[in-house]
Amino acid sequence: MAQSGLNMSRRIRRSPFTDKVEEYGVRGFSVVNHMLLPKAFETSVEDDYWHLREHVQIWDVGVQRQVQITGLDAARLVQMMTPRDVRQAKIGQCLYVPMIDEDAGMLNDPVLIKLADDKFWLSIADSDILLWVKGLALGLKLNVDVEEPDVSPLAIQGPKAIALMADLFGEAIRDLGYFQYGIFDVLGTRQLIARSGYSKQGGFEIYLHGGHLGSDLWDMIYQAGKQYNIMPGCPNLIERIEGGLMSYGNEFTRDNNPLECGFEELCYFGDDIDYIGKIALRRIAEEGPQKLIRGIKFGGGKAPPCGKPFLVTTRDNIHIGQITSGIYSPRLKCNVGMSMMAKGHWDFGTVVFVHTPDGIVREGTVSPLPF
Amino acid sequence: MAQSGLNMSRRIRRSPFTDKVEEYGVRGFSVVNHMLLPKAFETSVEDDYWHLREHVQIWDVGVQRQVQITGLDAARLVQMMTPRDVRQAKIGQCLYVPMIDEDAGMLNDPVLIKLADDKFWLSIADSDILLWVKGLALGLKLNVDVEEPDVSPLAIQGPKAIALMADLFGEAIRDLGYFQYGIFDVLGTRQLIARSGYSKQGGFEIYLHGGHLGSDLWDMIYQAGKQYNIMPGCPNLIERIEGGLMSYGNEFTRDNNPLECGFEELCYFGDDIDYIGKIALRRIAEEGPQKLIRGIKFGGGKAPPCGKPFLVTTRDNIHIGQITSGIYSPRLKCNVGMSMMAKGHWDFGTVVFVHTPDGIVREGTVSPLPF
Repeated sequence: MAQSGLNMSRRIRRSPFTDKVEEYGVRGFSVVNHMLLPKAFETSVEDDYWHLREHVQIWDVGVQRQVQITGLDAARLVQMMTPRDVRQAKIGQCLYVPMIDEDAGMLNDPVLIKLADDKFWLSIADSDILLWVKGLALGLKLNVDVEEPDVSPLAIQGPKAIALMADLFGEAIRDLGYFQYGIFDVLGTRQLIARSGYSKQGGFEIYLHGGHLGSDLWDMIYQAGKQYNIMPGCPNLIERIEGGLMSYGNEFTRDNNPLECGFEELCYFGDDIDYIGKIALRRIAEEGPQKLIRGIKFGGGKAPPCGKPFLVTTRDNIHIGQITSGIYSPRLKCNVGMSMMAKGHWDFGTVVFVHTPDGIVREGTVSPLPF
Repeated sequence: MAQSGLNMSRRIRRSPFTDKVEEYGVRGFSVVNHMLLPKAFETSVEDDYWHLREHVQIWDVGVQRQVQITGLDAARLVQMMTPRDVRQAKIGQCLYVPMIDEDAGMLNDPVLIKLADDKFWLSIADSDILLWVKGLALGLKLNVDVEEPDVSPLAIQGPKAIALMADLFGEAIRDLGYFQYGIFDVLGTRQLIARSGYSKQGGFEIYLHGGHLGSDLWDMIYQAGKQYNIMPGCPNLIERIEGGLMSYGNEFTRDNNPLECGFEELCYFGDDIDYIGKIALRRIAEEGPQKLIRGIKFGGGKAPPCGKPFLVTTRDNIHIGQITSGIYSPRLKCNVGMSMMAKGHWDFGTVVFVHTPDGIVREGTVSPLPF
């Protein structure tokens, strides 16, 4: 079953932009961080894909909640929660940081935003990191405040995003490097805008502080975007998989460590910093990971929706992986997916067999990410 | 919008019973604890309501995940996390326990199950309590293991549940008191069965340990239940509201304290135990809560779905509450809802006005819970 009804209630929170996405014809949602994430509008995933690659889209990604950590011990606490060396993080910079537990299991993969020497946001994927941070802070008696502020990102993605954003917020926005942010005038307020987003087509995220401004911000961008052929959109499954953008809960969970996720470059083992899970992670690094994230290209015609993972086997039916996100790519003219692949089976070009729920066994090959 | 498509992916986990609920015609889901909760089958909510009150239903409530705490410090950690005095908890007993943070904000309202002096389950509502417990345990360097075991509850609810369960698991099951559990033979394994469930119609929850047994367990119960007119079901919104059964994220959130939720009896202030949030909670108790959960009966014909809270005002349009769960009761022949009501407006019989999104302002009265 690819889609089924979603019952609405207060528990599944609306974002500041939900009224607008409903007005603009949203047809499907997912739930992330107890909040609605639009997943489909009136056009097909394929049409959305081509549009995203050519024009500009506006995405309600309010589900990327911020966990705000402020106080004297804020920097210390942030470093304790990630194997990445974040001592050199600069104000104005966004950093992708794996977060792990004491067994080196992945808890989340947020973007860390340093707002001041004693103030950080973790812009999170789908787990209640607020509770982890609060529990640690309380247990360790740290001098920090941990809260979820009224900050909801709105993404402007696609190759024409830069022209649109320069029209609205000034030419200075062109100077932002990838994963840098600045503070800009927006509707009479000062707002954080980062050059970032959950696509590889370029674009920005406006971290709207003040949910009451949500509809006005949407309208302002949509009006100005008409000349760039703007459309409402959402993270596009084809584009995301082609771009090798993983999703917490799909490609990896608490059962995976950062080395399996390909985050070796983000794991620091020097003696001059310590973090939760360092001992476990060092042991895993010494032994080498037992699986590794990979792309899989596979044929057999358009695969059905990947609501349940697709089993990946050898020719002899030995289980060597599972495709956790997969879809047909109209550009590559084959199916593409991401899978953790068992040791010995992750070399590029390895022939594999993908078992889809329609009963078809599809031949494929291990491929680098992004595709 | 009452319903919209839900996109399926691995991130929104299936339960051991999802294959069966799909086979039995599920038409809608919600998402709780990153997992699918069936919300509708082929019959209407009203028909389900009457059926639940007269016969027996089988519910996939695998979303009630267990947070398992074991070890020398387990009992100490459990007591730190709730204002309820759980020192006298007995093996074989289930206890409803509010969990609060250092500001006395509600984090969850699980059922605590004591399995041994050093082993507990928190059977949780919709927030990642696992991360809170792990964070605290790590920060406090406690001697505990904290995990989510492969345990997924299946509920058998309705007046005929007891006869069905006695047929399957022996007459001894009749001796279980409400919120007691026993260990029974199920499909050649030993399983925990509690007299409990998210309805007021009586019934049991089988805490299935071993997800691979999910389909067999469903089939066994469904076959034996045919003579009792069994149907697949799910927590019924009409029955839940009539019964005053609150839902975390709907009726209360981290912005509410347990006194606002009516949990005064569950808050212990003696000097002989300590817990997180005790100082904040005592201060709230001394000042008295500023709002209190109440029932609201209201007219004006069948209300639309309560996807967003309904504003509750005085005749003069002063905001005094919001209905966070509401629906038409065919038995009471009026709409029923639950709302936190502001101080001065929570007396039973107080006249209120409910603003529904169809533009109708409906007169109502404050009512006790359950209705």
